[in-house]
Amino acid sequence: MPELQTVLDEIAASMASMTERGHVAHYIPQLAKVDPNQFGIAVLTNDGQLYGAGDADAPFSIQSVSKVFTLTMALGQVGDSLWKRVGREPSGNAFNSIVQLEHEHGIPRNPLINAGAIVVTDVVLAGHKPREAIGQILRFMRSLADDEGIYIDNAVARSEEETGFGNRALANYMKAFGNLHHPVEMTTGVYFHQCAIAMNCRQLATAGSFLATQGRHPLTGIKVVSSERARRINALMLTCGHYDGSGEFAFRVGIPGKSGVGGGILAIVPGKASIAVWSPGLNKVGNSLLGSLALERLAKAMDWSIFGP
Amino acid sequence: MPELQTVLDEIAASMASMTERGHVAHYIPQLAKVDPNQFGIAVLTNDGQLYGAGDADAPFSIQSVSKVFTLTMALGQVGDSLWKRVGREPSGNAFNSIVQLEHEHGIPRNPLINAGAIVVTDVVLAGHKPREAIGQILRFMRSLADDEGIYIDNAVARSEEETGFGNRALANYMKAFGNLHHPVEMTTGVYFHQCAIAMNCRQLATAGSFLATQGRHPLTGIKVVSSERARRINALMLTCGHYDGSGEFAFRVGIPGKSGVGGGILAIVPGKASIAVWSPGLNKVGNSLLGSLALERLAKAMDWSIFGP
Amino acid sequence: MPELQTVLDEIAASMASMTERGHVAHYIPQLAKVDPNQFGIAVLTNDGQLYGAGDADAPFSIQSVSKVFTLTMALGQVGDSLWKRVGREPSGNAFNSIVQLEHEHGIPRNPLINAGAIVVTDVVLAGHKPREAIGQILRFMRSLADDEGIYIDNAVARSEEETGFGNRALANYMKAFGNLHHPVEMTTGVYFHQCAIAMNCRQLATAGSFLATQGRHPLTGIKVVSSERARRINALMLTCGHYDGSGEFAFRVGIPGKSGVGGGILAIVPGKASIAVWSPGLNKVGNSLLGSLALERLAKAMDWSIFGP
Amino acid sequence: MPELQTVLDEIAASMASMTERGHVAHYIPQLAKVDPNQFGIAVLTNDGQLYGAGDADAPFSIQSVSKVFTLTMALGQVGDSLWKRVGREPSGNAFNSIVQLEHEHGIPRNPLINAGAIVVTDVVLAGHKPREAIGQILRFMRSLADDEGIYIDNAVARSEEETGFGNRALANYMKAFGNLHHPVEMTTGVYFHQCAIAMNCRQLATAGSFLATQGRHPLTGIKVVSSERARRINALMLTCGHYDGSGEFAFRVGIPGKSGVGGGILAIVPGKASIAVWSPGLNKVGNSLLGSLALERLAKAMDWSIFGP
Repeated sequence: MPELQTVLDEIAASMASMTERGHVAHYIPQLAKVDPNQFGIAVLTNDGQLYGAGDADAPFSIQSVSKVFTLTMALGQVGDSLWKRVGREPSGNAFNSIVQLEHEHGIPRNPLINAGAIVVTDVVLAGHKPREAIGQILRFMRSLADDEGIYIDNAVARSEEETGFGNRALANYMKAFGNLHHPVEMTTGVYFHQCAIAMNCRQLATAGSFLATQGRHPLTGIKVVSSERARRINALMLTCGHYDGSGEFAFRVGIPGKSGVGGGILAIVPGKASIAVWSPGLNKVGNSLLGSLALERLAKAMDWSIFGP
Repeated sequence: MPELQTVLDEIAASMASMTERGHVAHYIPQLAKVDPNQFGIAVLTNDGQLYGAGDADAPFSIQSVSKVFTLTMALGQVGDSLWKRVGREPSGNAFNSIVQLEHEHGIPRNPLINAGAIVVTDVVLAGHKPREAIGQILRFMRSLADDEGIYIDNAVARSEEETGFGNRALANYMKAFGNLHHPVEMTTGVYFHQCAIAMNCRQLATAGSFLATQGRHPLTGIKVVSSERARRINALMLTCGHYDGSGEFAFRVGIPGKSGVGGGILAIVPGKASIAVWSPGLNKVGNSLLGSLALERLAKAMDWSIFGP
Repeated sequence: MPELQTVLDEIAASMASMTERGHVAHYIPQLAKVDPNQFGIAVLTNDGQLYGAGDADAPFSIQSVSKVFTLTMALGQVGDSLWKRVGREPSGNAFNSIVQLEHEHGIPRNPLINAGAIVVTDVVLAGHKPREAIGQILRFMRSLADDEGIYIDNAVARSEEETGFGNRALANYMKAFGNLHHPVEMTTGVYFHQCAIAMNCRQLATAGSFLATQGRHPLTGIKVVSSERARRINALMLTCGHYDGSGEFAFRVGIPGKSGVGGGILAIVPGKASIAVWSPGLNKVGNSLLGSLALERLAKAMDWSIFGP
Repeated sequence: MPELQTVLDEIAASMASMTERGHVAHYIPQLAKVDPNQFGIAVLTNDGQLYGAGDADAPFSIQSVSKVFTLTMALGQVGDSLWKRVGREPSGNAFNSIVQLEHEHGIPRNPLINAGAIVVTDVVLAGHKPREAIGQILRFMRSLADDEGIYIDNAVARSEEETGFGNRALANYMKAFGNLHHPVEMTTGVYFHQCAIAMNCRQLATAGSFLATQGRHPLTGIKVVSSERARRINALMLTCGHYDGSGEFAFRVGIPGKSGVGGGILAIVPGKASIAVWSPGLNKVGNSLLGSLALERLAKAMDWSIFGP
């Protein structure tokens, strides 16, 4: 087995020289401004060692990676009753996003696509004021990352609010079916803020590490979820974590992961390590192009695929 | 860790007493005649030990489980060029099966749904006569199962031919897009025969075991596929192996598997074991009800989930 | 040819004795309260004679019948450039409403379904304040009906605002594609108010009469639209005026018409007469059950089908 | 009112000089060979006068125009019970063709799209041998056209059989739902032959004339259908006769019509005339580009729109 830091350094060096870097998300104006020539990676192994390479300390907008954490919160609040309001199946191609909502009467296919994550946020809200719910999510992230420096990028949040009509359409649509309990603006407001959380790779790898360790955080020792729940969240990430590129990611990389349009990916090697990678350019299905490639190389080098040695 | 034979015996005993057993597939007349009060399970561990319980020696129609093996053959014949004709993404709900073909211009979403498996069979045909291709598939299965007794149930094959209009619709549809190279009746003819292969759990667990062992068959020692290809087939089974219940199976069971409407499931624990389970009654998405439950219990008892201990 | 008043009286008498009356719209609470045992019909012939029978003087919520009038206004304001933002094709079945929006990038299929009518209202708004646009629509209706008594039922408007999440979803969705120029709440606010206009059959038949008379109002003498535009609006009503029952209405009744979920239908006999009919109970595709039946009988009795004598 | 022959001559002259002529259907090899620089038009007025201009005597493949005639035959054979197997609604956009079949359990939306016409042909077959059914259809066409010279172009029929996989997909799909009573190859074989009927504009205008005359053929005096059935067939042509261009055709031309990919259109002016027009180049939704334009001009010049003078 090669030395992990060496592998990360080699990957970071290799990524720095790539010319095909994908396209930065353009539909959220604030994200469109990000320099695509960045790449960071961090790994927290289950023994508590934190490794990093490239721009591992540069904060980025975690966007949909936040869905893993609000899902964890919602399951903590309402347990398996969550699954009455959201499914556990991959969504098929992007084209079907809203027709499936129609076909399945307002029940989104899984909690890691936008519609499902909006329902999850609606659960987290739980009658509180949006400001309180946002605070609660932020505290949860700080606690998991073991770092009080994590913040919400308000310019990004505003940018999302100004352009988030697609998400409001989903929210209204689910509300028409009775699957949104708070006012649309309230739930989407919290959702836009959770997406705007800024973290760097070291923080994100640390925050997700409980999923690699049967639910107990390797640094803080806190039992975040049961081992069964950790397994199940990993399973959801594997089947649903990369939108319509989930099958491809499983095929090429072979570990559970959740991507965001900010270019970040959280990936979990059960029993071994938590990984955060970031590069802003996206492939055609909206996942970080270099991030996916880096994870493919890392999993291969370290023999980390869950589908076999 | 409990003793495997004990676990299997307990599971078989428990399944015998279940009253809710799902519904036997009715759309293929021959399958509708099968007694639902059957349950078999077999495990071949990577050290070459074969365990069984219940009706592990009763032959059943493997149906779509055959897709894993023709996929292996097609990849052996044409390599990664196969992926120009078939995708690698979960298909979303059943409803979308044919509209996705339309939307994606005749390229099926993955090789483990019917449309994709028909393309795979078209690749395996490779200009040969149907009789030869069927013979080749059967020899491959016998070789993998290390058992010359495996046969095609001709009554089932005829039953499929007499009722397989949905599959012919898919085949014609793909042919309209140029993604079927042989005449429809020829390709579907081979396809109907591969589905009609009869095997018992011991044979099926043995036949699939190369996927748990980096591609080298634990009994015969033959290198069937590379370790990378074994991992990738496992990834496809995990994301796409249970139709619109793939996410649920990953969530509950946590190991790659492929089901058939005959009630069989092949499941792979990478690095550890190959499992075949069979019970004819299906759940509402078409996967063996008791087979899925048995695998959930087995994975839990043996700590075999790929998503974490 | 029978005497028209006699025919109307016979139809009204016949409808009074019908026991199968359909179901009153339930999703707008105010509409759900309406007594289903009502039926009214009025006809304004092109020579200026107004006939009525049954509850022809009872006001009802015109709902989607308003779409014909805002379409007329929007065409007056922006002419054929309207067709860049909305199509002219029937929408196919209800199931496809929102997937078609997705497939056609936010361009609704026609101006007589909800999505299209929301775009039309967005055109009518034209930068004005909602209150002004609502006033303008109301003045247009009063002018066409030659009756200052027409009003907006504010309880219905509020009821729509409280429950109109499906329409807000459509509006947000189109805004995500850039096909809504005002804020969602502003455009849908006006839309909810236009739907809540209350009119009786005599007023509605009078208001729509310009479509039967080459565009010149038979009572006021005002040229509302050109003869070509009148023909084209009639064509749109024929192909798109009854949602997924448009084909059936053309098949059975054979004249252009537009229905609303309040149970009203405006129907036009080009060159001859304008008809308004109302009965609150709806058939399974959302059109007035007795209204459709009454029109079928009237068209047959008077030989008014546009598809042949 | 202008003199009809003069109008036709002017239209034919005008069409001869058009440079934008659309694209000849390419997916049926025999049709792809047709010279696009042709245009013919013929009108049979209800008083029995036959007018023609341009290539009115050149035979062409009537293709889907044949659907109107097999529909007439099927209604004659089984009456309104036909509507249990096929609907009467426009199909919405082309994209939905097969998903709607799926959603509506094998019942095609209307008899003028391919799926519906295949069911209609299945009704016409009625247990006979394909050869007999084809002969029966041909005799019906000859009788209506009052011309024994009408024939089936066997090269076109073979071309359709060799490439008609999309239609076979539809037929198999409906058979899977039980909505095809004969073997797929038998029904589609007849269907391919009916599409390959060759006629010229004079013959086609004559053949369709019963629809303009309350069902009684103006030349032969034979009562082909009741006046009600004639009206209803006209209504179906208006709402469904031009695939996803039906709304546009109603909007621009304003008379019932049925197009074929051979470039022919049959159009009916109820109470006045039957029109056949032909020009091989198609617009983007598959209807004759110049044929549609010629009908728009003719309807305008003669004041023939059914939606008002």
